[in-house]
Amino acid sequence: MFNSAGSVERLINQLARLPGIGRKTAARLAFHILKSTREEAFELAETIREVKEKVGFCSVCFNISEEDPCRICTDPKRDRNTICIVEDASDAAAFDKVEGFNVLYHVLGGRLSPLDGIGPDDLKIRELLGRLDDNVKEIIIATNPNVEGEATATYISRLLKPMGIRVTRIARGLPVGSDLEYADSVTLSKSLEGRQDI
Amino acid sequence: MFNSAGSVERLINQLARLPGIGRKTAARLAFHILKSTREEAFELAETIREVKEKVGFCSVCFNISEEDPCRICTDPKRDRNTICIVEDASDAAAFDKVEGFNVLYHVLGGRLSPLDGIGPDDLKIRELLGRLDDNVKEIIIATNPNVEGEATATYISRLLKPMGIRVTRIARGLPVGSDLEYADSVTLSKSLEGRQDI
Repeated sequence: MFNSAGSVERLINQLARLPGIGRKTAARLAFHILKSTREEAFELAETIREVKEKVGFCSVCFNISEEDPCRICTDPKRDRNTICIVEDASDAAAFDKVEGFNVLYHVLGGRLSPLDGIGPDDLKIRELLGRLDDNVKEIIIATNPNVEGEATATYISRLLKPMGIRVTRIARGLPVGSDLEYADSVTLSKSLEGRQDI
Repeated sequence: MFNSAGSVERLINQLARLPGIGRKTAARLAFHILKSTREEAFELAETIREVKEKVGFCSVCFNISEEDPCRICTDPKRDRNTICIVEDASDAAAFDKVEGFNVLYHVLGGRLSPLDGIGPDDLKIRELLGRLDDNVKEIIIATNPNVEGEATATYISRLLKPMGIRVTRIARGLPVGSDLEYADSVTLSKSLEGRQDI
């Protein structure tokens, strides 16, 4: 029956290319869009277009932004002594929701991954070094807690330490609300290493 | 940081309205769209718009279609003796992928649901009766195998039986590839009721 609605089949194919969306979910989404009002569907189409047209990168921190420099980099209320280094813009977005955490960011644009041919020059590391001035007292490395993220963190900390800047790494441990029973032993080990007095 | 990219936040909100898409998935999808090429993103936006502009309903079977009547209703190679009744266009799409099943459809546009105030007049039941001619030998009722779907099937079969048309219901039983251990007792009971000689 999809012969009878070529554009629906095309929409399903395009939605199925999105991460974590299989063909069945794509079909459900497409039928939902078909059932939704004209306004809702057009609004979604327009926003997708707008996002690609308006959103670029901040030339200071390389976060996504509609302005350059971005509103975080120009925000006078931010703690300018601390830069939080993340792999992707989505990670910066996640950290920036933490209440009371009001720092600057630096988006690397990925992580070191020799197997994929991604070396230091492919990340915004040179640009990070370029923006370090006397204001910067602490660099928080918030790359992902996996092998490549840890390697990236180690690489950057070795570059920065000789410059006399405090370099910290986010804690690894048990997620809040999780169950010890399901935790892997590496996480458990990290949660012991990082234990604190109460 | 989403202040710095209003259209991204808007895209996330709009994606989160889709069924089965929470805010975290919506954010992942939005960042994927941001990372994808301009062409891919614009193509998706255009297809969403096109689907709403081009796709309407077939005035015979009420399936979604870019033409009226739809290509299934006008297809000379279809078995015109059999009409398969489904709740939604997506159900028709699913059945039409079954090899060797080459029949006509009738899309009810929902199912009887007194609690939601959906009665026979809200479904395309009158329209179904209107299209029954001497060609039609069998009506397969393929509404969902849940309480409301069964009630809808019973209602329609009572309407049709006096007309001397064969009315059948799709089999309920164990899904192929499933595990007996996880089957509920109603399904098991249906699988026994519907047992066949081998």
